[in-house]
Amino acid sequence: MLELYYAPHTCALASHIALEEAGAAYKTVLVDFRASEQRKPDYLAINPKGRVPSLVTDNGVLTETPALLVFIAQTFPQARLAPLHDPFAFAKVQAFNSYLCSTVHVAHAHRMRGHRWADDPAAIAEMQRKAPQSVGEAFRLIEREMLAGPWVMGATYTICDPYLFTLAQWLEADGVDLASLPKVHDHRRRMSERPAVERALAQELA
Amino acid sequence: MLELYYAPHTCALASHIALEEAGAAYKTVLVDFRASEQRKPDYLAINPKGRVPSLVTDNGVLTETPALLVFIAQTFPQARLAPLHDPFAFAKVQAFNSYLCSTVHVAHAHRMRGHRWADDPAAIAEMQRKAPQSVGEAFRLIEREMLAGPWVMGATYTICDPYLFTLAQWLEADGVDLASLPKVHDHRRRMSERPAVERALAQELA
Repeated sequence: MLELYYAPHTCALASHIALEEAGAAYKTVLVDFRASEQRKPDYLAINPKGRVPSLVTDNGVLTETPALLVFIAQTFPQARLAPLHDPFAFAKVQAFNSYLCSTVHVAHAHRMRGHRWADDPAAIAEMQRKAPQSVGEAFRLIEREMLAGPWVMGATYTICDPYLFTLAQWLEADGVDLASLPKVHDHRRRMSERPAVERALAQELA
Repeated sequence: MLELYYAPHTCALASHIALEEAGAAYKTVLVDFRASEQRKPDYLAINPKGRVPSLVTDNGVLTETPALLVFIAQTFPQARLAPLHDPFAFAKVQAFNSYLCSTVHVAHAHRMRGHRWADDPAAIAEMQRKAPQSVGEAFRLIEREMLAGPWVMGATYTICDPYLFTLAQWLEADGVDLASLPKVHDHRRRMSERPAVERALAQELA
């Protein structure tokens, strides 16, 4: 059975929702960030990057949210979570998720994890100060250019939707004004009403 | 015909090499970063992110290196550049490329493009100072845990290889000691001998 290693309030939520949408048989394993379990030998043996999510499969361990989302879509094709056999449409899905992981999530990480890229406390504070601007700019590009509506890719729900929803959870804490993002805000509300999302959130926050 | 918008010394090289490996019919279009063409209206109409690469196809524009690499693999299946129909193996490929875009390339970007995440010149200088460490740590994880050899995924060449080769071009300028990365170094040398790589580099640096 698939095992999803996760921590609450992380991007692991995207894969968790996708597993629920797919009707997958899986279980979750909490990695306690407050106890720094992600950097202890037991967890590093699973994922040497010391991050979540990790998905333990019968064949081995998988990491990285964009990879997990496509793996779930391919493993449960009846859930139709990605246009796997249309190279252009699939590339649009992949490009959106790649933007989320390499630009949006990274901009957010400068508020909480600036130590990855600087040691000087003043520099880390400066990164925190700018995070609302860089996260806001990325989300305004999504609002203006990428979110077709009602779902990210338009009429069809895909693996882009749980990932966008997951990163949009952090907007208030990142200091971004949701009033400038009506489509993103509406997408987040619509997502929160899906039973799969309700189940994943209830399990993570229990 | 496919059109690849690129600039020399950027991650666009990965897609350029993949197009060569695939035997694709394509042409390249130089985006002159010295003239800041990537931020001018003509280019923003193609890619509102103002970055390279962009791949113009008959159906529209695609962006983001991991997405382009899979698109090329799917569009030219006879080149066998990715295990498209093995969900676990494909997820390993995707996870590697996702790590390159969201961690390795991002660590590198703190040397040249710190202004994305800070305005204070002292903070930007501090990011530059730490880049050799953060880039080095990421490459040492690749060396130790990910690069199976002789190619990234083992015996079979995939779309991971041109992407790793592309980011490994920057190691010396990033201040990373190649002596600590014998497998990465050997991979870079082996890649540089491939005719597809020679053609892509010759065209970009002409």
